[in-house]
Amino acid sequence: MKILMDLCVVPQVEGVSLSPYVAACQKILDARGIKNTLHAYGTNIEGEWEDVMAAVKACHEEMHKLGSPRVSSFIKMATRTDKDQSLEDKVASVEAKMR
Amino acid sequence: MKILMDLCVVPQVEGVSLSPYVAACQKILDARGIKNTLHAYGTNIEGEWEDVMAAVKACHEEMHKLGSPRVSSFIKMATRTDKDQSLEDKVASVEAKMR
Amino acid sequence: MKILMDLCVVPQVEGVSLSPYVAACQKILDARGIKNTLHAYGTNIEGEWEDVMAAVKACHEEMHKLGSPRVSSFIKMATRTDKDQSLEDKVASVEAKMR
Amino acid sequence: MKILMDLCVVPQVEGVSLSPYVAACQKILDARGIKNTLHAYGTNIEGEWEDVMAAVKACHEEMHKLGSPRVSSFIKMATRTDKDQSLEDKVASVEAKMR
Repeated sequence: MKILMDLCVVPQVEGVSLSPYVAACQKILDARGIKNTLHAYGTNIEGEWEDVMAAVKACHEEMHKLGSPRVSSFIKMATRTDKDQSLEDKVASVEAKMR
Repeated sequence: MKILMDLCVVPQVEGVSLSPYVAACQKILDARGIKNTLHAYGTNIEGEWEDVMAAVKACHEEMHKLGSPRVSSFIKMATRTDKDQSLEDKVASVEAKMR
Repeated sequence: MKILMDLCVVPQVEGVSLSPYVAACQKILDARGIKNTLHAYGTNIEGEWEDVMAAVKACHEEMHKLGSPRVSSFIKMATRTDKDQSLEDKVASVEAKMR
Repeated sequence: MKILMDLCVVPQVEGVSLSPYVAACQKILDARGIKNTLHAYGTNIEGEWEDVMAAVKACHEEMHKLGSPRVSSFIKMATRTDKDQSLEDKVASVEAKMR
């Protein structure tokens, strides 16, 4: 089962900057060869359910390893049986209707 | 790794009522013995990462089986290494500060 | 326009405990007479759009006043034109289908 | 008070395609001159609190006008007092840490 996901990992840490932590998550996704696109409020991900969920777990584990005692994730995700839709398809489909 | 989750499954279906679908998800959680509390905007869940994620997948599969071609989930979740916190602990902790 | 909302305010703060901050938000909702129910992963809210949004803003302002430099909110919300539904209606509707 | 937001409006409609509805929301944001970037799972928005919230309300009203009896939104948003951060700053900050 394929899944499209928007993942936003928020580790609770000292200080205000979260970008080193987000970067660590990005590296995990890239290292696992999981298709992803960073945006200003999360990362869009496309892949097989098991691969994507294993990557999300690896992100939580990495955040804890980097010193965060409490790691939250905020996720939007969808599965479809009617057609195979990519992240690019979704954006293209909206943009086509805006012309 | 234990996880606390707020799960909101939204199947795209004909008609406006989603409650039969939400009820089907609740039954999946109950049948698997996963601790959960229904509220007006989702279901709070507490359990081991693998058990909880397997239940979420089972919910998506059930929604498709019930006829929804597109199933979305909206999830808030957290893991902690500093202490073992239950769903009840979280509510009690806030209520204690309101007195 | 009436709105049902699930509000989860997350201030970035020193230390791990967020419950004093959540309690402060609850007090704001109560003081404004906005119907709400605390659960383990947020607060369900019911009210007129303008009242609810003004309360959300007041929560952000209060978090900053209490010392948080960065305040995030994670919101699920819905408006309906087909019927007037309360928070209790939503829960009752699911529970009726589980019997 | 400036706000950064990730907005995902989900109207309940007949049929599976939501892109015409998302396009209608994009047009509302553009017509109001509110800075926004569409991605595969929502739209990132930057602006003054009141302007952004008025636009979100206009999106809900437009979805109802287009025939959806039930409109949900899923929002992530943040306000900061420590610095003025743009949508581009957030992405650049993560990307700098990935090199």
